[in-house]
Amino acid sequence: MAQQNHDLTATTAGEVLGAYLRSQATAFLRGLRLHEERTADATDGTEAARTLRGAARRISGSLGTFRTVCESAWADGLRTELVWLSSTLADEHAYADRLARLLGALHRLSGAPGAGQAQGGLPAPRGAAAAGRGQAGPGAFGGTAGSLTVGSARAGALLERQLTLARTRAHSATLQALGSSRFHAVADAVAVLASEVPLDTVAAAGRTGDVLVPLAALAESRLDTAVSALPLIRAARPYNADALIDDGHQDSPWHDVRRLLRTHRYAQEALGADVTRLAAAGGALDRHRDAAEAAAASATAARTPRIAPATAYVLGVLHADQRHEVEAARFDFQQIWAHAARPAGV
Amino acid sequence: MAQQNHDLTATTAGEVLGAYLRSQATAFLRGLRLHEERTADATDGTEAARTLRGAARRISGSLGTFRTVCESAWADGLRTELVWLSSTLADEHAYADRLARLLGALHRLSGAPGAGQAQGGLPAPRGAAAAGRGQAGPGAFGGTAGSLTVGSARAGALLERQLTLARTRAHSATLQALGSSRFHAVADAVAVLASEVPLDTVAAAGRTGDVLVPLAALAESRLDTAVSALPLIRAARPYNADALIDDGHQDSPWHDVRRLLRTHRYAQEALGADVTRLAAAGGALDRHRDAAEAAAASATAARTPRIAPATAYVLGVLHADQRHEVEAARFDFQQIWAHAARPAGV
Repeated sequence: MAQQNHDLTATTAGEVLGAYLRSQATAFLRGLRLHEERTADATDGTEAARTLRGAARRISGSLGTFRTVCESAWADGLRTELVWLSSTLADEHAYADRLARLLGALHRLSGAPGAGQAQGGLPAPRGAAAAGRGQAGPGAFGGTAGSLTVGSARAGALLERQLTLARTRAHSATLQALGSSRFHAVADAVAVLASEVPLDTVAAAGRTGDVLVPLAALAESRLDTAVSALPLIRAARPYNADALIDDGHQDSPWHDVRRLLRTHRYAQEALGADVTRLAAAGGALDRHRDAAEAAAASATAARTPRIAPATAYVLGVLHADQRHEVEAARFDFQQIWAHAARPAGV
Repeated sequence: MAQQNHDLTATTAGEVLGAYLRSQATAFLRGLRLHEERTADATDGTEAARTLRGAARRISGSLGTFRTVCESAWADGLRTELVWLSSTLADEHAYADRLARLLGALHRLSGAPGAGQAQGGLPAPRGAAAAGRGQAGPGAFGGTAGSLTVGSARAGALLERQLTLARTRAHSATLQALGSSRFHAVADAVAVLASEVPLDTVAAAGRTGDVLVPLAALAESRLDTAVSALPLIRAARPYNADALIDDGHQDSPWHDVRRLLRTHRYAQEALGADVTRLAAAGGALDRHRDAAEAAAASATAARTPRIAPATAYVLGVLHADQRHEVEAARFDFQQIWAHAARPAGV
């Protein structure tokens, strides 16, 4: 699927992997510096955290895929620590994004003015069906205007309370993690990595095409196996209404593909390939995960004791809306994937 | 769009329209007889009522489109009465269908077993996206299993109570209408129509191609104007999430097209044309109307005083699900319409 930019015969595995890991380690350290500056300023550290997380995921992904090209014991240890770090860093922003997504959906469903594009034929910026979704004129909530305006406001306040609390807790956990000796050990290890990558001497001396490419192909075949287990024929049929039936585990195969796709993408990045389509497909699966978690947050909020029926009704609408977005993300992924699977120009 | 079967030059307008009206009048009388037998047996009169309504709609539609070919005063009078009759007859079954649709959706959303087809590639029987919609394995309600099973059962009971009451009232109204002197006058007029159609002598003597075809073309152009006002580019983009934003009048243009499409279809039927595609497009708009009314019924039920939050939550999910079906029906209509607009074989 991806075009290789590195010369697979003229370079060694150690040169290619080393260069990639060093550049990601440098990005990590830059993100860390940015994050410390932001924390000192008490300003928003979203961009810094994103840089940190992105680099941490790329390093840990490469250490997994190309494990045998590195000193394995070192690679396994650092990888575990980077997974811990990136998941810790992710939580705070995930709660903030989830709240923004849910409040945005409430605003849209309430037919709030300010986005009055009811018809449009512009091409989709990301997924095939993602463009302009949910843009419509002013209006009322589900034909129940007025009587549910209260419900909508209360549902928004309830979600804000619950998700802000979760975010605050995650923020404390992040601060605690970043001040821990465990974190300092990770930062030290990455600082070493930025100048000197501990490689397996024999494997690293092999040609890129002989060593890295087969390992990357293994990551791709794991992904392909997982994708082939997805109900893609079903997902290709719009409005199949599958996603609204939550059997408790229908999302898992999609989440698995999301993780495997990311691993595959980072391996291709390390090889210097063009990962535009992989990034687009991954974006659809990110939206899939985000919508699924937003729907779950709405269902959780609806179980709060003593809420008004109008609040519960709006949370039900919101839950269904986000499950609808889950279904839309599956459709987008299928479209991108089917398109990417075809040879170029066909 | 439709192929004419009648010879447009060898037949007169009176022959073609007369034959169509007589055959529909005969169908009306057969439906009436069936209905009387069923009522006497106290059995379900669904089929009889459908025959009656279908014939009444076709007669009134033709009297409208081809008004100038008939004795106009007579045509206007009978048409008004037939519209009254078919709308009276429609109510009872509409409530029954609405309840069945909502209980079916509740069953499906609750992940009830018995329809466990999670992936399938069979072609759609009606609209492009209609096939297999909402078939999935067993599961729980929106990730909130158990805690909302009660809500689902209560929501079902509430809808059943409200819609059964409405149906019973409509049934009484139907019985009252069928026993009225107003109805007997309609039945007498249709009985006359079955043997002798009051036509305008001059217009009826004209050739079919010169008289009926231009009148049918007028009905088609009214339809085309209404269709061109629909946001079809938007509807062609799956998961646009427009339908969930109820601004109180976004459905109206679609309902207008539904009525104009029916009029056009009956005119084409009278001319002996193949109306398969028009019927399919009309079917999508029928589903659009049914889903919109089911969503409204769910919203109405949610405004019942003193319901439990869990009940309200489920009604919210159900409302959103049916608005999702509204959007799916628009997509189906767009697909059928775009397909039908293309020349055959392209």
